[in-house]
Amino acid sequence: MTDTNTNMRLKLPITCFILEIILIILFGVLVEYDKETDAKKWHHSNHSEYDNDFYYRYPSFQDVHVMIFIGFGFLMTFLQRYGFSSVGFNFLIAALALQWATLMQGFFHGMHGGKIHVGVESMINADFCTGSVLISFGAVLGKTSPVQLLVMAVFEVTLFAVNEFILLSLLGTRDAGGSMTIHTFGAYFGLMVARVLYRPRLDKSKHKNSSVYHSDMFAMIGTLYLWMFWPSFNSAITAHGDDQHRTALNTYYSLAACTLSTYAMSALTAHDGKLDMVHIQNAALAGGVAAGTAGEMMLTPFGSMIVGFLAGIISVLGYKYLSPILESKLKIQDTCGVHNLHGMPGVMGAIVGAVTASLATKEIYGDGLKDVFPMVAPDGRSASSQGGIQAISLAVTLGMALVGGLLVGFIMKLPIYGAPSDASCFEDSIYWEVPGDEEGHEGQLSTVKTEEFAKPEETEKLN
Amino acid sequence: MTDTNTNMRLKLPITCFILEIILIILFGVLVEYDKETDAKKWHHSNHSEYDNDFYYRYPSFQDVHVMIFIGFGFLMTFLQRYGFSSVGFNFLIAALALQWATLMQGFFHGMHGGKIHVGVESMINADFCTGSVLISFGAVLGKTSPVQLLVMAVFEVTLFAVNEFILLSLLGTRDAGGSMTIHTFGAYFGLMVARVLYRPRLDKSKHKNSSVYHSDMFAMIGTLYLWMFWPSFNSAITAHGDDQHRTALNTYYSLAACTLSTYAMSALTAHDGKLDMVHIQNAALAGGVAAGTAGEMMLTPFGSMIVGFLAGIISVLGYKYLSPILESKLKIQDTCGVHNLHGMPGVMGAIVGAVTASLATKEIYGDGLKDVFPMVAPDGRSASSQGGIQAISLAVTLGMALVGGLLVGFIMKLPIYGAPSDASCFEDSIYWEVPGDEEGHEGQLSTVKTEEFAKPEETEKLN
Amino acid sequence: MTDTNTNMRLKLPITCFILEIILIILFGVLVEYDKETDAKKWHHSNHSEYDNDFYYRYPSFQDVHVMIFIGFGFLMTFLQRYGFSSVGFNFLIAALALQWATLMQGFFHGMHGGKIHVGVESMINADFCTGSVLISFGAVLGKTSPVQLLVMAVFEVTLFAVNEFILLSLLGTRDAGGSMTIHTFGAYFGLMVARVLYRPRLDKSKHKNSSVYHSDMFAMIGTLYLWMFWPSFNSAITAHGDDQHRTALNTYYSLAACTLSTYAMSALTAHDGKLDMVHIQNAALAGGVAAGTAGEMMLTPFGSMIVGFLAGIISVLGYKYLSPILESKLKIQDTCGVHNLHGMPGVMGAIVGAVTASLATKEIYGDGLKDVFPMVAPDGRSASSQGGIQAISLAVTLGMALVGGLLVGFIMKLPIYGAPSDASCFEDSIYWEVPGDEEGHEGQLSTVKTEEFAKPEETEKLN
Repeated sequence: MTDTNTNMRLKLPITCFILEIILIILFGVLVEYDKETDAKKWHHSNHSEYDNDFYYRYPSFQDVHVMIFIGFGFLMTFLQRYGFSSVGFNFLIAALALQWATLMQGFFHGMHGGKIHVGVESMINADFCTGSVLISFGAVLGKTSPVQLLVMAVFEVTLFAVNEFILLSLLGTRDAGGSMTIHTFGAYFGLMVARVLYRPRLDKSKHKNSSVYHSDMFAMIGTLYLWMFWPSFNSAITAHGDDQHRTALNTYYSLAACTLSTYAMSALTAHDGKLDMVHIQNAALAGGVAAGTAGEMMLTPFGSMIVGFLAGIISVLGYKYLSPILESKLKIQDTCGVHNLHGMPGVMGAIVGAVTASLATKEIYGDGLKDVFPMVAPDGRSASSQGGIQAISLAVTLGMALVGGLLVGFIMKLPIYGAPSDASCFEDSIYWEVPGDEEGHEGQLSTVKTEEFAKPEETEKLN
Repeated sequence: MTDTNTNMRLKLPITCFILEIILIILFGVLVEYDKETDAKKWHHSNHSEYDNDFYYRYPSFQDVHVMIFIGFGFLMTFLQRYGFSSVGFNFLIAALALQWATLMQGFFHGMHGGKIHVGVESMINADFCTGSVLISFGAVLGKTSPVQLLVMAVFEVTLFAVNEFILLSLLGTRDAGGSMTIHTFGAYFGLMVARVLYRPRLDKSKHKNSSVYHSDMFAMIGTLYLWMFWPSFNSAITAHGDDQHRTALNTYYSLAACTLSTYAMSALTAHDGKLDMVHIQNAALAGGVAAGTAGEMMLTPFGSMIVGFLAGIISVLGYKYLSPILESKLKIQDTCGVHNLHGMPGVMGAIVGAVTASLATKEIYGDGLKDVFPMVAPDGRSASSQGGIQAISLAVTLGMALVGGLLVGFIMKLPIYGAPSDASCFEDSIYWEVPGDEEGHEGQLSTVKTEEFAKPEETEKLN
Repeated sequence: MTDTNTNMRLKLPITCFILEIILIILFGVLVEYDKETDAKKWHHSNHSEYDNDFYYRYPSFQDVHVMIFIGFGFLMTFLQRYGFSSVGFNFLIAALALQWATLMQGFFHGMHGGKIHVGVESMINADFCTGSVLISFGAVLGKTSPVQLLVMAVFEVTLFAVNEFILLSLLGTRDAGGSMTIHTFGAYFGLMVARVLYRPRLDKSKHKNSSVYHSDMFAMIGTLYLWMFWPSFNSAITAHGDDQHRTALNTYYSLAACTLSTYAMSALTAHDGKLDMVHIQNAALAGGVAAGTAGEMMLTPFGSMIVGFLAGIISVLGYKYLSPILESKLKIQDTCGVHNLHGMPGVMGAIVGAVTASLATKEIYGDGLKDVFPMVAPDGRSASSQGGIQAISLAVTLGMALVGGLLVGFIMKLPIYGAPSDASCFEDSIYWEVPGDEEGHEGQLSTVKTEEFAKPEETEKLN
C-alpha cells in the first residue's frame, strides 16, 4: 500500500534528482557547443558576427518558448482547483523534457565525432518535442501524479525522437510545424495513455472537472499566446528567407479563418446559442495545428484560410459530439480534449501536407523548390512520391503513437509512482500547499486528506 | 420582436460564416504572396536569405500582435462580469478585421497587376487597422452584441483604409505610429457610434459597470503589454535603420515620462489622494499615443519626454473631469474612456507631429531627411508645407471619423442584430455559458435570463 | 504628525512632478541620440540599413523589458491584498529608474563631448539597473510607501552606476548578466534597507503577508516570464555572434536543471512532502541568477547545468531554513526572500564566474578570447588575474551594497515620506481605490482607515 506522504516527500525528489544527475552526466560526456556557439570554432572561420544564426532563429525560439511554458501551462489552468498543478507540472515536465529531448534528438539526428552539437536549433527542436509531451499531459490532466508524468515524459521523448528520425531522416518527410511529429503523435500517444489509465469511477471528482470564472480567464492567457505565436512555431525551423516568411503568413491566415468558424460553430451547437469557453480556448487554435505540415509550402493564403476554416469546424464538432462518445464507448477520458485540438487537426494537417506536396512543381516554386522539398528533383523523387511518403508518414506516426502510448500507459500504471484516488483527481491540494481563496479563510480548501491518494491495488484495471 | 436565443444561435454563426466565406473567395481571387514570401519570386533574384524582410519586421509584428490580442483584450477585462466578452469579442473582431483590412488596405495602397501582395508588412498594417477597430470597441464595450461588433468592424475597416489612403498616399502625410490614422480615427469613430447608441437608462446596469479586485489585475496585464511593446508599435513600419531605432527610443521615453505624470495626477485628483486603477491602466499609455506621429522624427528624448509628460496629465484630467461631462451633456457613454486614452492624446500627437515636421531641416536630419519626409526636398515640398499637410490630415481624420461613426452607428442601431437590454449590459452570461465563481456554486451567476436581451423597439432613439 | 491624506494627495504628486521635471531638464541639457539613432550621423557613414544595431539588440531588449514590468511586477503579486501595489509600484519606480539610470550610467560610462549618447544599448543597461532596484523593492515589499520607494530608487540607481563603473570600467570585470552588479547588489542593498526599516510589531499584519489561490496564479505569470526570458537577459549586452548565442544557451540549461532541483527540494523539505508555491515561484529562477557572470564564458552546457542544479538547492534551503533566521536573529524582514533568489545565487554566480575566468585559455576560446576577456592577453592580464579581479569585484559589490543600503535605509526612515502603520502593511487600500472582491460587495475591503498610516514618531528605531 502506497503511503502518499512518501510519494511526494521521497519519490518525487528522488526521481527528479536521479533524472537530473543522469542528464548532467550525459551532457558532460556527450554534448558540446556547435560551431555557432563555440568561441573557438566560430572565430575560426571568417564571417560577420551578424551572420550568426542566433539572430535568425532566436526570436522564433523565444516565441516557441512562451508557447511551451505560458501557452500550454495556462491553457490547462481552466480547471477550478488544478491551476497550481496545471501550470506547475507543465513547468516541471517541460524543464525535464527539453533536456532529455536535446540528448535523444541529438543522438538520432546525427552525432559529430561522438558528440551532440547544441545551439539555437537544438533549443527549438527540444521545445518542439516538449510540446508533444505537453499535449499528452493534456489528455491525462488531473489524473496523474508528477512522478507518473516524469516517467511519461522520459519515454515519450524517446519515442518522439525515434518517430521524428524515421520521418525526417529516413523517409525525407516534410513536417516543419509538426502536424504529424508533434500534434498527431502527442495527441494519440496521450489518448492511449488515458485509455490505459481509464477510471470508471471518475465521476467522484466530476464537480471539480470544470472551470470557474477566473480559471477560464487564466486559460485565455494560454490560448492567446498559443494563437499569436503559432506563426513563429510553424516557421521556427523552416529554411531561411522566403520559407520562414511564407510559413508564418500561411499560419496567420489559417488561424484567423479558424477563429471565425470556431465562434460560429460554438454558438450554433451550444445550449441556447451561447458561446462555450471550451471551444474558444481550444478550437480556435486548430488552424495552427492544421497548417503545421503545409505551412511552409506554397499553400497560398486562400488555401491556408480554407484549412483553418475547416479545422475550426471539425474541432468544435469534436468537442461537442465526439468527446462524449470517446469517453462512453472507448473509455478514453480526454481531460483537455486533445483529440479535438491536436488529434484530428493534426491528421488533417498531415493530409493537407501530403496533397500540397504532391502538387508541387518547379513552375510554382521556381528555384525555391529545393528548400521546401530537398528530395524532389529531376533525378530524385517525384512530387507525387513525396505526397505518398507524407501519407505513409502519417500512418507511421499513428502507429508509433498508439503502440507507444499503450506501452507507456502500462508502465505508468505500475503501482509504484503514486496516483490520486478517483475522488481527489483535479485537486491541487494533494500535491501543493494550497492557501485559502479569500482573506481570513486561509487554508480552508486544503482539507482534502492526503490519505485520499489512491491505494494502487484499488486502481481500476484496463478492461 | 427579436428572439434573443435566435440572435446567437443563428445570427452570429450566419454572420461569421458569410463573412469568412466572402473573405476566402476574395483572397482566392485577389491575394498572392509578395516577392519576399513567394518561393519562385524570392529565388528569382540574387540575394542572401538573410536579407529577407522577415528578419527586420517580424519581431516588431509579433510585439504588435501581442498588443492587439493580449493588450487590448485584457485591458478591457476590468469589468467585473464582462471578462469573457472583453477578451473573447476582442479576439473575434480582431480575427475578422485583420483579414478584411488586408483586402481593403491592399486595394487602396496599390494593386500589383490586379493582385494584392501580402507579407510581413501587410500583416503589420492589418494589425494596425485592427487596433483602430478595437479602440472603437472600447467606447461601446458592454453595450453591443457580437453581431453589431462584426458589422462595425467591416465598415470601420473600410473607412479606415479610405482615410489612410487619403493621408498616406494622396496627401503624403507622415504617421508611422498612427496618432491620426489609428488613435484619433478609432476614438472619434467609436465615440460617435456610442453617441448614436446612447442608452438613457443605462443606470439599470450601473452596478456591473465597474471592476472587482481580480478584474483590475487582469486589466493590468493588458496595460503592461501595451506599455512595453508600444515602442515596437510606433516603429514597426518606419524606414529601416536609424528610423526604427529612433522611433522605438522616442516612444520609450515618452511612455516613461507619462507614467510619472499619470501617477502624480491620479493621486492629486482622486478621492483621499488614493491612486485610481482606471488612470494607471489607461493614462499611463497616453505617451505612446502622443508619440505616434512624431516618434519617427528627430523629436529628441527631451521632446519625447515633454510630450509624454503632458499626455499623462491630459489623460487623467479627461478621465476625472471630461468623461462625466461627455456623458451628461453630449450623451456619449464611453465605457473605457477612449477619448482620454486615444482621442485627446491622438490629437495632441497629430499636433506635435505637425509642429515637429514643420521644423525639419537638412541641418538636423542630414541625408536621413528623405527617409522621414520623402516629399520634403529642395525641388519639392517645404518643411512648413509638410507641417501644414499634417495639420490638414488631422482635420480630415476627425471629419472621416465623426461622419463615419455617425453613419455606422445608425447601421448598428438597426433592430436586426440583437442588442443587450439596458439591464443586461456589461454581463457575460447573455452571450456565454458562464461557470460559477467558486467551487460548489457552479452556474450560480448565469441566471440572467436571455429574455433580458433588448427588444429592439424599446431601444432608445437618438435624441 | 503626518497626515496620511496629505502623503498621497500632495507628497506623491510633488515627488513625481519634481523628479520628472528634473529628468526632463537634464535630458534636454545632456542627452542626444547615438550614431545609430540619429538621422544625420547614421546616414553620414556608408553602411546597410540592416547593419543598425537595432536589429541585433532590440529583440533582447524587449524580452528584458517584459521581465522588468511583467516579470518582476507579477512575481510580487503573490500577496493576497497587495496586487495593485506590487504591480503598480513596480511600474512607477521602474519608469522612474530607467530614466535616472540612463543619466547616471551615461555619465559614468563615458560622455561624448559633454553629451550622453542613447540608443538600444542604453535602453538595455537602464532596464538592467532598474532590475536591481526592483530586487531591493522585493525585500521591503508591503512595508514602504511609494514616496519612500521613489527615494530609494533615486539613490540606489546612483550607487548602482558607481559600483558598475568601478567594476566594468576601472577593474575590467566581466559580468554580462549581472550576477554581481544587478543581483548581488540589489539583494544586499535591499536587505540592508529592510534591516534599517525593521518593524518589531509586523505580526499585526501577519495575516495579510501570505497568498491566496488566485494571487499565486498571478505570481506564476511573473515567474514564467522571468524564467523564459532569462537567456535574453544574460545575453542582451554580450558581444555579438557566438557570445550572445552561447550566453543564451548556457542560461537555458542552467534554468532547466534548476527547475528540477527546485521541485525536488521543495517536496523534500516542505510539510507533508507537498510542493510550496514560494519555492516554485522563486527558487526555480536561481539558475538564471547564478549563470549571470559565467554565462558568456565557455561554461559548457555541463557546467551550466551543475550551476543551475546547485542554485536551486541553495535557494530552496534558504527559503526554508535561512529566511526565518534572518528575521529572528538579524531582524531582516525579507518579504520576497530576495536573499534566496538574488543574494546567495548572485554570490554563487560571482564565484563561478571568477573560477571560470581563471581557467580561460587561448586553447579553449581561440580568437574568441578577446570578445569575452578583452583584458586577458599575452601582453596584458593573465586569466588567473582576471579570476582574482572577479573575486575582488564581488567584495566591492557587497561592500557598496551593504554600506549603500544602510545609508539609504536611514534616509528612507526620515519621517517625511509617510509609511504604512504596522497593521496596514501588505494592504492595497491605503494607497489605492480598491473595489470589492465580488459582485454586489463593492468596496467592502477598502475599509482600512487611512488614519492607520504610521505616525512616524512611532516607527521603531533600529536597535
